[in-house]
Amino acid sequence: MKKTKAAIVGASGYSGQELIRLLLRHPHVDITHYTSRQYAGKAVADVFPRFRGQVDAAFVEPDVHKLDADVVFLALPHGVAAEYAPALLQKGIKVLDLSADFRLKSAAVYKEFYEHEHPAPGLLQQAVYGLPELHRDQIRGANLVACPGCYPTSIILGAAPAIKKGLGKPDTIIATSLSGVSGAGRKVADEYLFTECNESVRAYGIPKHRHIGEIEQELSALAGLGVTISFTPHLIPLNRGIVSTIYMTLAAKAEDAFAMYGDFYKGEPFVRVARALPDTKNVEMTNYCDISVRVDPRTNRLIIVSAIDNLTKGAAGQAVQCLNLVCGYVETAGLLG
Amino acid sequence: MKKTKAAIVGASGYSGQELIRLLLRHPHVDITHYTSRQYAGKAVADVFPRFRGQVDAAFVEPDVHKLDADVVFLALPHGVAAEYAPALLQKGIKVLDLSADFRLKSAAVYKEFYEHEHPAPGLLQQAVYGLPELHRDQIRGANLVACPGCYPTSIILGAAPAIKKGLGKPDTIIATSLSGVSGAGRKVADEYLFTECNESVRAYGIPKHRHIGEIEQELSALAGLGVTISFTPHLIPLNRGIVSTIYMTLAAKAEDAFAMYGDFYKGEPFVRVARALPDTKNVEMTNYCDISVRVDPRTNRLIIVSAIDNLTKGAAGQAVQCLNLVCGYVETAGLLG
Amino acid sequence: MKKTKAAIVGASGYSGQELIRLLLRHPHVDITHYTSRQYAGKAVADVFPRFRGQVDAAFVEPDVHKLDADVVFLALPHGVAAEYAPALLQKGIKVLDLSADFRLKSAAVYKEFYEHEHPAPGLLQQAVYGLPELHRDQIRGANLVACPGCYPTSIILGAAPAIKKGLGKPDTIIATSLSGVSGAGRKVADEYLFTECNESVRAYGIPKHRHIGEIEQELSALAGLGVTISFTPHLIPLNRGIVSTIYMTLAAKAEDAFAMYGDFYKGEPFVRVARALPDTKNVEMTNYCDISVRVDPRTNRLIIVSAIDNLTKGAAGQAVQCLNLVCGYVETAGLLG
Amino acid sequence: MKKTKAAIVGASGYSGQELIRLLLRHPHVDITHYTSRQYAGKAVADVFPRFRGQVDAAFVEPDVHKLDADVVFLALPHGVAAEYAPALLQKGIKVLDLSADFRLKSAAVYKEFYEHEHPAPGLLQQAVYGLPELHRDQIRGANLVACPGCYPTSIILGAAPAIKKGLGKPDTIIATSLSGVSGAGRKVADEYLFTECNESVRAYGIPKHRHIGEIEQELSALAGLGVTISFTPHLIPLNRGIVSTIYMTLAAKAEDAFAMYGDFYKGEPFVRVARALPDTKNVEMTNYCDISVRVDPRTNRLIIVSAIDNLTKGAAGQAVQCLNLVCGYVETAGLLG
Repeated sequence: MKKTKAAIVGASGYSGQELIRLLLRHPHVDITHYTSRQYAGKAVADVFPRFRGQVDAAFVEPDVHKLDADVVFLALPHGVAAEYAPALLQKGIKVLDLSADFRLKSAAVYKEFYEHEHPAPGLLQQAVYGLPELHRDQIRGANLVACPGCYPTSIILGAAPAIKKGLGKPDTIIATSLSGVSGAGRKVADEYLFTECNESVRAYGIPKHRHIGEIEQELSALAGLGVTISFTPHLIPLNRGIVSTIYMTLAAKAEDAFAMYGDFYKGEPFVRVARALPDTKNVEMTNYCDISVRVDPRTNRLIIVSAIDNLTKGAAGQAVQCLNLVCGYVETAGLLG
Repeated sequence: MKKTKAAIVGASGYSGQELIRLLLRHPHVDITHYTSRQYAGKAVADVFPRFRGQVDAAFVEPDVHKLDADVVFLALPHGVAAEYAPALLQKGIKVLDLSADFRLKSAAVYKEFYEHEHPAPGLLQQAVYGLPELHRDQIRGANLVACPGCYPTSIILGAAPAIKKGLGKPDTIIATSLSGVSGAGRKVADEYLFTECNESVRAYGIPKHRHIGEIEQELSALAGLGVTISFTPHLIPLNRGIVSTIYMTLAAKAEDAFAMYGDFYKGEPFVRVARALPDTKNVEMTNYCDISVRVDPRTNRLIIVSAIDNLTKGAAGQAVQCLNLVCGYVETAGLLG
Repeated sequence: MKKTKAAIVGASGYSGQELIRLLLRHPHVDITHYTSRQYAGKAVADVFPRFRGQVDAAFVEPDVHKLDADVVFLALPHGVAAEYAPALLQKGIKVLDLSADFRLKSAAVYKEFYEHEHPAPGLLQQAVYGLPELHRDQIRGANLVACPGCYPTSIILGAAPAIKKGLGKPDTIIATSLSGVSGAGRKVADEYLFTECNESVRAYGIPKHRHIGEIEQELSALAGLGVTISFTPHLIPLNRGIVSTIYMTLAAKAEDAFAMYGDFYKGEPFVRVARALPDTKNVEMTNYCDISVRVDPRTNRLIIVSAIDNLTKGAAGQAVQCLNLVCGYVETAGLLG
Repeated sequence: MKKTKAAIVGASGYSGQELIRLLLRHPHVDITHYTSRQYAGKAVADVFPRFRGQVDAAFVEPDVHKLDADVVFLALPHGVAAEYAPALLQKGIKVLDLSADFRLKSAAVYKEFYEHEHPAPGLLQQAVYGLPELHRDQIRGANLVACPGCYPTSIILGAAPAIKKGLGKPDTIIATSLSGVSGAGRKVADEYLFTECNESVRAYGIPKHRHIGEIEQELSALAGLGVTISFTPHLIPLNRGIVSTIYMTLAAKAEDAFAMYGDFYKGEPFVRVARALPDTKNVEMTNYCDISVRVDPRTNRLIIVSAIDNLTKGAAGQAVQCLNLVCGYVETAGLLG
């Protein structure tokens, strides 16, 4: 079988690095371009010594016209991806976007959360929200997939069964997330220095973190009504991993919450529902989302805890899972083991 | 001025170690006994090399009859402290208990959360809940002070102003806490090994963690009605520190939440209300509790974040603060710098 | 091609866990037994939630007579492996031993370092030291492979070119190693608790660490004379990884040390010689050994730095590499990506 | 007693922050100025929330003419301190320099290691090397004290007894150091990001790290002949702390190495010689240097291990210890507890 040619635009960040790791072992994909403004001309293996002996290529400038590929992964900062997507789509290249640029259906909601006009609003309806567990069929036929990041993935997958099945009241959702530092990207800033993050925990971005918009969009669709949530992210001293703890008031008797969650995700290759509470170390460098659920009769609330690796199921792994759907491969290709 | 003679019963755990650190620099206290069943006969400085050159004593067996002291700190596991307290009180020794044994006023609530009868229910009414910010005057005259631990301290101090002043609805309180591993004590168990905790985050103990009882007791007293809360603790990879993030629905207009919090804690030597969100690293090895508050108009909720060092304000520092009140010293003696 | 049936004896330690991870993705191996005294009867996925969805089996008691396998990995504590090997070999099963039991050729040297008689001295000559870079051909035909652990692998691979080629003086070798905590195994002891290892660095086991014996054995063979080394291991706060820094006085002009190292390991699939100093993060969860070398004209010394993942190239990965040789597979099967 | 007025020039780095922490609790010092180019005008407590409630002052520009102080601490990058010292000395202000600018006696050696001419060579002879254990008397009368940093302090204190007493051969010294990340200062660079340092260990700066010059200067003085050493620093994932492991060939029978070390440092308030190998966690946030020593009869070498907190005894604490000597205070003032 002829391999799919894939280019990684923005290959020098943490999501790009994880894409390289995953695609190198993907049986049906060849990486044709690694782009990086900052490192153009330098060998990939010199910037990422992890890949020494595995990658001979050098980083190149991100020139859309020179990308010879069937699919392009955009692992770019928010706002930049939207500059690349239109031209790529016009060339007939499928786009797997890891940024937030095309996740929202509404340009107005985009403006509310990102505080500027959307740069390519015409593409918003065409884009498919790249969460396979909710939108598998649409992703299969998509040209532009907007893969959700770490916070939305962990919270939407955690809340979806309860909301979709009417177990929890949609207007009572509160989510607390704990994220490893790679979630901030490879941003060189004082606050992400080792000595500032180690032996440190802090909440940030409350009360209106940008990712709330897409979480509410997806949960509203599941609930069939407009959902507004509270969300508090925290930065904790680990490299990879997110745990999200989600509360909602019970709408119905919930003695079978565990069974319902198991049913909802039955057959899903990357969601594991278990009685034991999840731990990021069990999903590290995997594409799994581990979920557990508890009913609290004292407060009449449901508590759901989910864990993912923010760089895998929360970024690059999810994008590869979407690629597998887009290209008609087995959904787990390159993602197990 | 004659110094207060203090004995530390259970001096070989993490709270005991922190008590030693704090009392060694206390201007008005001499440590007379360091007890430890496990290490009796061994030099304190051999077990805790940090104190080499500062402590010449050896650990001794915890024999109540041999303790020659004005005050005794009980840094013992839950259930064990209650065995020591009666005899000490009978000898006229003041007791500063760091365990949970005497924190609840109700033996029935104790039984609900600890699942056995209270071993010394007759002392429950006499004991004073050792949170100076709420019970300063009673602590001053107390013989038995039940010092709250890390989760209760961070949550009660965070929620108290909003509940006391009617800003938040008491029946909507949800608290998420993130704790460093020393919070589990010096317990030699597989789950606390470095390799199991590093690069790991996990929730545990939901939905009915034992400390909920005392949190609800204190918040109920502030609210003037029975309060039931949701509480999820998480274990994160750092040594010392807790952040608690507390949600509640607004009962009243809250544009002045920050000012109200500032007023509530005005003059408190160890509570710092600030606009910036707290970080455990700013309170590490200090007795401070840092608090910040946000109003979320989208969800009509209040979000409060508090941070303490679990071994200082969440254990040994709080006990020393109580000692200062009990003994009539300046409340900050030995606790600044 | 019929798959090789492999049993893992001692599958519940960290090396056993890493063996499971690697063998699950090995194209030519089926795991037939996971033994564990401690967890016999429990599902592997309950003890190691990382493998949920991938392993259905339960741990079984380590009964040699019930092991139906072509090869057996012994991931057991030192001294225990020697009890299993003879019976397995007698059954015609090939043994890949990850312990130190069969690494030394001399029972006398064994006694010197382990302070008791060797339990099966008759097998010592038959055993092959499982370092493919030095003993590839012997491993191919071996029935009993004694795979070296983390310290010996990192130091021998680092020193071998200089000693073999006469660049360094064998009687001047000093090695300092920095090891992650998983190197101590899953030992439940006070000293390996998170709070004792985090924000901590310490040397240990000097001056006569047990692994010195096998390092000297291998370096002596390369040098053609008896070599005695100094070796200091240090425990540092990370999960996986070892860096070894090795000093020796130059015996010859060494301007071409880098080229010599490159030549020595030319074609080796798992040794990467580079100008940049190695970092454990670049070899984490891989079977690579990264090496760099510097000449210090001021002191006339050679300084070599090597890095491996102690659980992969320092344990389970090395054993799988040996399995590939023993079974005639491509040497990198299951070990890349 | 009138307090000493102290200004901290460069107060916004990690050494500056530690100076603030130590001087705030010093009984005889008032901090009069906190200078910082980057943060001039901002409240100290806003930049370092740890000091909220303790420091009301704001950072000011480092203008020598406006500094009203008896002593000035220079916590500046190498090369910058030398610009400030002359003017301060001329104003009659005593200077405690934490940089490397005045540690070398020889401008030629300075040029060899720093690769440019010394900016104020006339002050080199006047400056006193601020290691109290070796130069206590000179420090007492000094106007300009060049306080050694973390690597030199840990290595010189570790090697001094053996070299001074003729136990070890000076031409065989090899030192390996493991440093926490705060040792790199608060430098905002890719390589010091949390995600790049956590789960990472790496050697760097070999074979000719800049601090070798001053280590050789001090050891040569002790040996009475020119000493050349090998030195390899490593960056490891902890905030504070250095362990140095030092090797040298025995020059004499050394059965009494431990006693000799104990004698050498007898009465020293901040050096603790113990049989147990040191651990950084025992000296964290203290001014102690813990040292242990082992004789290896197999290799005829001495192995010394020392541990300090790089920001305290390796920087700010040492400077305060020197201030106590310069000002005639008890040497431990402000440094215990």
